[in-house]
Amino acid sequence: MENPIVVEVTRGGRVESRHRGAFAVVDAKGRAVHAAGDIEAPVFPRSAVKVLQALPLIESGAADRFGLGARELSLICASHSGEEGHVALASDILAKAGLGEGDLECGCHWPFAGAVARRIAGEGREPNQLHNNCSGKHSGFLCTAVHLGEATRGYVGARHPVQERVRAALADLTGTALDPEEAGIDGCSIPTYAAPLRGFAQAFARIVADEGAAPERLAAGRRLIEACMAEPWYMAGTRRACTLLMEAAPGRVFAKTGAEGVFCGAVPELGLGFALKIEDGATRAAEALTASLLARLFEPHDPALAAIYAEQSRAGLRNWKKTETGEVRAMAL
Amino acid sequence: MENPIVVEVTRGGRVESRHRGAFAVVDAKGRAVHAAGDIEAPVFPRSAVKVLQALPLIESGAADRFGLGARELSLICASHSGEEGHVALASDILAKAGLGEGDLECGCHWPFAGAVARRIAGEGREPNQLHNNCSGKHSGFLCTAVHLGEATRGYVGARHPVQERVRAALADLTGTALDPEEAGIDGCSIPTYAAPLRGFAQAFARIVADEGAAPERLAAGRRLIEACMAEPWYMAGTRRACTLLMEAAPGRVFAKTGAEGVFCGAVPELGLGFALKIEDGATRAAEALTASLLARLFEPHDPALAAIYAEQSRAGLRNWKKTETGEVRAMAL
Repeated sequence: MENPIVVEVTRGGRVESRHRGAFAVVDAKGRAVHAAGDIEAPVFPRSAVKVLQALPLIESGAADRFGLGARELSLICASHSGEEGHVALASDILAKAGLGEGDLECGCHWPFAGAVARRIAGEGREPNQLHNNCSGKHSGFLCTAVHLGEATRGYVGARHPVQERVRAALADLTGTALDPEEAGIDGCSIPTYAAPLRGFAQAFARIVADEGAAPERLAAGRRLIEACMAEPWYMAGTRRACTLLMEAAPGRVFAKTGAEGVFCGAVPELGLGFALKIEDGATRAAEALTASLLARLFEPHDPALAAIYAEQSRAGLRNWKKTETGEVRAMAL
Repeated sequence: MENPIVVEVTRGGRVESRHRGAFAVVDAKGRAVHAAGDIEAPVFPRSAVKVLQALPLIESGAADRFGLGARELSLICASHSGEEGHVALASDILAKAGLGEGDLECGCHWPFAGAVARRIAGEGREPNQLHNNCSGKHSGFLCTAVHLGEATRGYVGARHPVQERVRAALADLTGTALDPEEAGIDGCSIPTYAAPLRGFAQAFARIVADEGAAPERLAAGRRLIEACMAEPWYMAGTRRACTLLMEAAPGRVFAKTGAEGVFCGAVPELGLGFALKIEDGATRAAEALTASLLARLFEPHDPALAAIYAEQSRAGLRNWKKTETGEVRAMAL
């Protein structure tokens, strides 16, 4: 099945580049209320399902044991920018479990935001594993392992109980059988499991509609999503798309990016979840399409909010002299 | 016309993302000896035609007047990484024409290579216009204006004689009428003119086959291409694709990247030019496809070189712990 063009990039009066993709807006029963492209093909969700990967942290009681509040839970669901506040909080979470940076197995990278990386370099420092955009998630994994008395070393392996619980939660909420032998390895070394976009969208719809899974699981999901919506800076960072999308409608929209052009999210007041994938993996297109989907979902009952998202679905492109040269814009859905 | 999938990105055993595109390998008469996708649709060539944009520098006599050698000409055709050697040489070229950094109108940006940017930041410095990846090209524009006694201020404007000459050379070699009113504005503020991939490929074929335009123009093009092939580091930089592609076959391959997934080049011994565009603008895919095209072109008469390019057409992807997670690979052509 051919995926339609969902985002265009213009220069002058001409379309310069085009992005194809698929999206699914789904209710808790898995009915697609709005969709395009192939929503049944398996897709690696990457970081877009960090909320689902954090479910065992809540369900096991580890979050309560270590007194994790909204900021901590938001960071645990984050692909953060490695800004000072993110790094410090990840360190705090590890300390609560009696651990430190050296216990992380996510690896090290310079923060993606050039300005943040240059600030660290300008101070003559190097990044450590706390700067990894996934350090919050990994701190959460370690909290669960400590709480349950499991070995912390090797917690990223597909057969470690930490990852087995994650897989079980993902399989349950997406309604998809997930085989560890078919997992991909994510940037932060944990397994990533492919499933249809419809399944990921349904998982988030179940959480916000509070139906279709065990009450404890749904409550855990709701607690995580509410933490992200309450503390959107901790889930991404300064001027990041996820943060801006959630700040536009406090407490009403959840949206999370994943590498290679994925986005997942939910609109609690509509009881809907969504998932999308840009065929070529482009983040710029995934961000524009997410904003455009939200504009469409709010159009009937909150046109003012829809207009804000419509604005976010078009990003002006400027050159080095700040001249506007074109834009990234979602197609009419 | 639908563009085919030309590059896949895998993770584990699965295709995670796909890039569509079009490519044309063309002889001096404009005959496509090898092509896929829509090669007649107008495409902005961006920086992939810097050699063609430098033709008036040679034709006007400015390059000889200012004693520009292979390194300088390669930098003038470059999208360089802003490394120390690039910045110093751009400054030298300007000095030959009695000008300096402040005369540039390309704007300022941090070098794209994170390590280079962090080195500058680590020394407590900021980039200036010499660090702009186009500073060599702009230095060349200024040399021509000074040589011909034209105003240097405003040399980036579509109606300045510097840009009028560039447009005339592009129109001539591509065989395409180019209207300044339909130009896009490039990242470095000069006009960029859309033309079919077939036209750009033909322009480079004409130069290396030495037919289809005025002898002085063809000789100027050949001098520029030979400079790039002789000094490939100055045309891009450390570990950059253009540099690696040309270093693999010294003096035998010319290849130049452009923003938004464009590549142009030529194989002089075959008298062929090529041009390609990834539909979604992805550089990773343009690089893989270029290497794959070169592998195919050399396969019949130099299988050893073809094997080197086949190797370059697959790039292993590793995560932050250096685990191999997948690859970017060109499809069989």
